[in-house]
Amino acid sequence: METVSTSKAYGGTQGVYRHASTATGTDMTFAVYVPPHDEGAQLPVLWFLSGLTCTHANVMDKGEYRQACAELGVILVAPDTSPRGDDVPDDDAYDFGKGAGFYVDATEEPWAKNFRMRSYLEDDLPALIGAEFPMADMARQGITGHSMGGHGALTIALRNPDRFRSVSALAPIVSPLQCPWGEKALGGYLGQDRMAWRAYDACALIEDGARVEGILVDQGDADGFLEEQLKPELLAKACQTAGIDLTLRMQPGYDHSYNFISTFLPDHVAWHATRLKLQAGL
Amino acid sequence: METVSTSKAYGGTQGVYRHASTATGTDMTFAVYVPPHDEGAQLPVLWFLSGLTCTHANVMDKGEYRQACAELGVILVAPDTSPRGDDVPDDDAYDFGKGAGFYVDATEEPWAKNFRMRSYLEDDLPALIGAEFPMADMARQGITGHSMGGHGALTIALRNPDRFRSVSALAPIVSPLQCPWGEKALGGYLGQDRMAWRAYDACALIEDGARVEGILVDQGDADGFLEEQLKPELLAKACQTAGIDLTLRMQPGYDHSYNFISTFLPDHVAWHATRLKLQAGL
Repeated sequence: METVSTSKAYGGTQGVYRHASTATGTDMTFAVYVPPHDEGAQLPVLWFLSGLTCTHANVMDKGEYRQACAELGVILVAPDTSPRGDDVPDDDAYDFGKGAGFYVDATEEPWAKNFRMRSYLEDDLPALIGAEFPMADMARQGITGHSMGGHGALTIALRNPDRFRSVSALAPIVSPLQCPWGEKALGGYLGQDRMAWRAYDACALIEDGARVEGILVDQGDADGFLEEQLKPELLAKACQTAGIDLTLRMQPGYDHSYNFISTFLPDHVAWHATRLKLQAGL
Repeated sequence: METVSTSKAYGGTQGVYRHASTATGTDMTFAVYVPPHDEGAQLPVLWFLSGLTCTHANVMDKGEYRQACAELGVILVAPDTSPRGDDVPDDDAYDFGKGAGFYVDATEEPWAKNFRMRSYLEDDLPALIGAEFPMADMARQGITGHSMGGHGALTIALRNPDRFRSVSALAPIVSPLQCPWGEKALGGYLGQDRMAWRAYDACALIEDGARVEGILVDQGDADGFLEEQLKPELLAKACQTAGIDLTLRMQPGYDHSYNFISTFLPDHVAWHATRLKLQAGL
């Protein structure tokens, strides 16, 4: 792991790092905020997965999570949204290819070689974080994300209930099977067998038996993607049927931007901190 | 005034606006955050002047001021740092020309026509804010800024003690007469008569009799510009001689970036809010 930069913020360290990922076959860049802590302390880890077009930097610059992480003693990890590099295939669209990995392991060509963001986030990067950040308590992980990253957070948590103690999302895509972004991306990365998509659809995963203890979702009601792409009512229905405790908060007047994210992300940090500390008996 | 965008944030409205400035002879873009407030309420106004290379957007994206402004009921106005446009002269350097207006009224050619940021901030934009934002109480204004913008905040406040009730700065250039950035910029915009520079030098203004009630300055001690460009000790000496109450806080480990700004700007908002509310008897 190479340190790209570190900078003191709210008493802790906002760092940017790069490593050669075996999952994607590329160098990957990610951001980690480590709050101020006593030597030898073990801190819970919150993952933030970003939305379309983003890198690790968007939430680092605009997310306003550091104050809450510093006060509550939570590490925040912000990965990139896709493999990068001149040798990585791309698409001109903003919602496919680079910046739009959709947190899947692609099986279609030419994407299958590098677009393996599921493996990257389920195996590769957590192993690196555990090895390189000794204060990170990998037994206490939570995950959240925005839009495409909310989809990533929900699906990764539903597939890995033993790894994550808490899951939330901001304006998530809750069912790629049932929206244009998902149709395009999962069709492109996974092919036309829609059964293969179900492992990457929060609602389908729940229908197929996946369970988590509870989910917090914030969603702006002035979000221009709400009706066509995000459809939180589908998640509400799936959770109700499955008996999953979903807290869905419709936030009046909020859009899809970082003004929405930065308003509510500190609250998500607190929500995760409560659960990550409770579950460890702290 | 044209509304470029508005977006709900922390219960208030983060807006971006554009107007034709008579001072600069160009269109100017600026950002205003209006916190949640009761109808008919009158709110104090805090100006944030940005540093080299910045537009209105940097602090809007990375400054993390909205939570404090929302909680304390403070409007924050973030202007651009220079005139813009294809017809405006420029320089290839990052520290002169566009993005580097240094908050002066230039007298040298080709800058004199457009580079009139002093007049823009002393006359043009406050008049517009007062006219277009009815909740803005222009009798209660404070001013702050970062680096070149800290220089702007200090000098504008020192020249206009009746307008501003409070002034602070983050890692300010305290004496352009005594640093390379200032030598280059003031020489370029104002010519080689250094007496003409004194109206744009916080330390010289204080030496020449300008007074404010008190000043808060935060400065990171890991700031790479500290020794050669910023020199807070010069301001400390000038304030001590003049009997101005300067609170200079050296912040261990902090650099010159927005990680420093976003850590301490909320505290500056609170510092201004206390003074702006006290002075109005609220």
